[in-house]
Amino acid sequence: MELNRIIHINEIAQNGAFDETKALIYKGSMGNHEKMLSSIREAIEKTGLKDGMTISFHHHFRNGDYIVNMVMDEIAKMGIKGLTVAASSLASCHAPLIEHIKNGVIKHIETSGMRGELAEQVSRGLMEFPVVFRSHGGRAAAIERGELHIDVAFLGAPSCDPMGNANGYNRDEENATMCGSLGYAKVDAQYADKVVILTDHVVPYPNTPSGIPAIQVDYIVPVQNIGDPAGIMSGATRYTKNPKELLIAKTAAQVIEHSGCFYDGFSMQMGSGGASLATARFLREKMEQENIHAHFALGGITGQIVEMHEAGLIDKILDVQSFDLIAANSLKNNRFHTQIDGRFYAGYDNGGCAVNALDFVVLSALEIDTEFNVNVLTGSDGVIRGAIGGHPDTAAGAKMSVVVAPLTRGRIPTVVKKVNTVVTPGAVVDVVVTEQGIAVNPRRQDLIDRLTAEGFKLNTIEELREKAEKTVGAPEPIKYLDRVVGVVLYRDNTVIDVIRQIDET
Amino acid sequence: MELNRIIHINEIAQNGAFDETKALIYKGSMGNHEKMLSSIREAIEKTGLKDGMTISFHHHFRNGDYIVNMVMDEIAKMGIKGLTVAASSLASCHAPLIEHIKNGVIKHIETSGMRGELAEQVSRGLMEFPVVFRSHGGRAAAIERGELHIDVAFLGAPSCDPMGNANGYNRDEENATMCGSLGYAKVDAQYADKVVILTDHVVPYPNTPSGIPAIQVDYIVPVQNIGDPAGIMSGATRYTKNPKELLIAKTAAQVIEHSGCFYDGFSMQMGSGGASLATARFLREKMEQENIHAHFALGGITGQIVEMHEAGLIDKILDVQSFDLIAANSLKNNRFHTQIDGRFYAGYDNGGCAVNALDFVVLSALEIDTEFNVNVLTGSDGVIRGAIGGHPDTAAGAKMSVVVAPLTRGRIPTVVKKVNTVVTPGAVVDVVVTEQGIAVNPRRQDLIDRLTAEGFKLNTIEELREKAEKTVGAPEPIKYLDRVVGVVLYRDNTVIDVIRQIDET
Repeated sequence: MELNRIIHINEIAQNGAFDETKALIYKGSMGNHEKMLSSIREAIEKTGLKDGMTISFHHHFRNGDYIVNMVMDEIAKMGIKGLTVAASSLASCHAPLIEHIKNGVIKHIETSGMRGELAEQVSRGLMEFPVVFRSHGGRAAAIERGELHIDVAFLGAPSCDPMGNANGYNRDEENATMCGSLGYAKVDAQYADKVVILTDHVVPYPNTPSGIPAIQVDYIVPVQNIGDPAGIMSGATRYTKNPKELLIAKTAAQVIEHSGCFYDGFSMQMGSGGASLATARFLREKMEQENIHAHFALGGITGQIVEMHEAGLIDKILDVQSFDLIAANSLKNNRFHTQIDGRFYAGYDNGGCAVNALDFVVLSALEIDTEFNVNVLTGSDGVIRGAIGGHPDTAAGAKMSVVVAPLTRGRIPTVVKKVNTVVTPGAVVDVVVTEQGIAVNPRRQDLIDRLTAEGFKLNTIEELREKAEKTVGAPEPIKYLDRVVGVVLYRDNTVIDVIRQIDET
Repeated sequence: MELNRIIHINEIAQNGAFDETKALIYKGSMGNHEKMLSSIREAIEKTGLKDGMTISFHHHFRNGDYIVNMVMDEIAKMGIKGLTVAASSLASCHAPLIEHIKNGVIKHIETSGMRGELAEQVSRGLMEFPVVFRSHGGRAAAIERGELHIDVAFLGAPSCDPMGNANGYNRDEENATMCGSLGYAKVDAQYADKVVILTDHVVPYPNTPSGIPAIQVDYIVPVQNIGDPAGIMSGATRYTKNPKELLIAKTAAQVIEHSGCFYDGFSMQMGSGGASLATARFLREKMEQENIHAHFALGGITGQIVEMHEAGLIDKILDVQSFDLIAANSLKNNRFHTQIDGRFYAGYDNGGCAVNALDFVVLSALEIDTEFNVNVLTGSDGVIRGAIGGHPDTAAGAKMSVVVAPLTRGRIPTVVKKVNTVVTPGAVVDVVVTEQGIAVNPRRQDLIDRLTAEGFKLNTIEELREKAEKTVGAPEPIKYLDRVVGVVLYRDNTVIDVIRQIDET
């Protein structure tokens, strides 16, 4: 009697009294559940996946990914329909999704980017509902808020122990498949109702330090191959030898040097495009000359950043995505190369994500318009062939965002009157560097004053557009139908633009 | 029109269209919110703490903790009443809570343990509602399930950056206050509605690797002192010189050696009591002699375990709580000494917590009864003077649990007919080692057979009880009142026992 009253007071009545048989259930076993399954089908069945649910994938295997196609093929065989695929991004290798869309297995797609045949067909009206494009930070926020609710996450991992601790590398075998950081997958693992790890290396417990902790994992499926190592990552991200890109990079490094953002203890993110990579190289020279070091580098990490870290030029690395093998190996071995998740990196809602601590970011662009809006998603023909990535997140968070791009590409101008698709709003773009001139956003009069005083000859963005037009002529307007095939969300998940079906009539 | 329809389809209508002024809000700032506050009072106000809410604290500062008393004093001054204090554990230094209980500021307490004057008074009927005692794994499960909902967590940290990345050590100052792992605090940070970090060292962003990530932190309050370094931790956990403890330890090591759990690649946890620490020492000799190494060591970590790790005898350390400065420094510096949280360690509900992967654990006891039940919470006088800790979690998870204890302490028998308080049920206790004999749980006939075959002379637990009684006589029964002052929960949060008010009439 009395005991019941007490239990009631403490709101623990539901659990009742201790039962010895229950205490013994797990004695000497390896887990509360048997997580290790023998097939993808068994995992799909156990997760309770049903028509209309949302499943997710990560893109850390890039164009070498086997997971998406393997899982979708099995789902299709099982007759499940009407799914939303919420991938952190999609690549050319995911063209087989086209059949699943046509057959009704996939109803809707949310992603950061899309390339190849799938993107071509989506641009031509393949899907009934428009694809939702989000930045990495916007996706993290959408998942955190529940706007993007994931029923089942299918996450590939280069290693996993029998309890579910998963990593983007493994320590038991040399030269095994690896992807480094599992940054975007970490968010899915944390929020999805059910989490399935697919791995080609089951390693002994504990697989620490872990990318994804066992407590977030429901099932583990060993598979022969998680991806094509060559497509997952290259040995080292190569330097550009393109003279135009080198000139842009050199100029960008000079701008940074005199911007007020280059001081001992600064922080930076460098995009993975040719010109931004080269900018890091010129910046390194300046750091060595002036005895200036960076406190941290953020983002997608390349071997170049790792070399600067190992040379003592950068104290810490925050790695949400490893771009090459050098970066992945550094994450595995270097104490201050830390794996961070998509929320930590750029999550719009959390109080203080890493992008907000950036002094500057160097970003690339497919198009920039005279309002400084940037397009990294659709080509000059209006076809989807890119990814938002962390572009708007870093541009909005950093004290200074520098967009580097050639003024023209072939017969196509880069600086235009109006970008096809607004991905990053001009409001958060500070400097545009081309090989034929630099333009600073009029909103940043402080930067205009400073750079002018330092002897830079600045152009207006309108002048850059005129130069481009003088070289290659004004671009032909793309013909679109009214039908919307893609919705582009800003990092706060408001609608910043739509992508329309291209008109091929 | 069309746009609205699309937004509706994608269930993102609530966010509306991109607004440039909003995009600019965070540009170049350090965070979405201003987290750094000037006083504890300001933090309490901002969290919206109200009468009747639940607040939490961690016990990584042990008996040197200033946080609990500092925060409770401020709350009392503000006139907030009827709070539940859910600490991961409480120590002697928390005696000032007595006044807050008397004044109605604190209505209820949930904890792993309690010592000193507060425990004395609780045992004598101080509180209207019984204190709820949980194991570390049970607490993690209760928080995860929402049975223990934390409104505001006040978490002390030896370092924190301006965005909230908090650590149990800092890298900017030699000889600063440190506690090593923030394992139990990590669970609170993840689940509490509001999280306040109190720190004596604000360090530059990013404070990585982090114990508590910024995205879980709402406010940061710099304070002069978070605790008394001497009380927080000692330089190294000392070896016992007590011959009785050494004999017990030697015997325990022999039992382990021949139990089948001692093989190349085994895993272990060692309690911090004198005899269990000494067991590790004897085990080390055997490991070196037989060229056997451990794959991982778990739990509260001591310098002894670290030395074995650094000597290559233990591959990995999973550290939920660092017991001394050597352990804390190792966590800071050693790549495979990993900070884990309370759920990862022992959370009952998650599929695969670390205790389930243990080959063996060596644990101490205040009392053991003839059904192998163990008491680590109340003294022979019935007064609360201990903590459950991970005792039932590890005993239930490990393939073999070994309880080491002297047969008698002074005039008090350790092996008794019925323990005062059942904390760890006999069902999960495998071996009891005393200086006067070894008893194996009859449930483990496999172990009885094996050890007998290896030449061990085993006793029944009843024989051990008789020996103890022959030496010091049967213990006087403790006089209790009917009133319940404490409820003891097993790790699945079912009620395993109650603690009654001692009768001093």
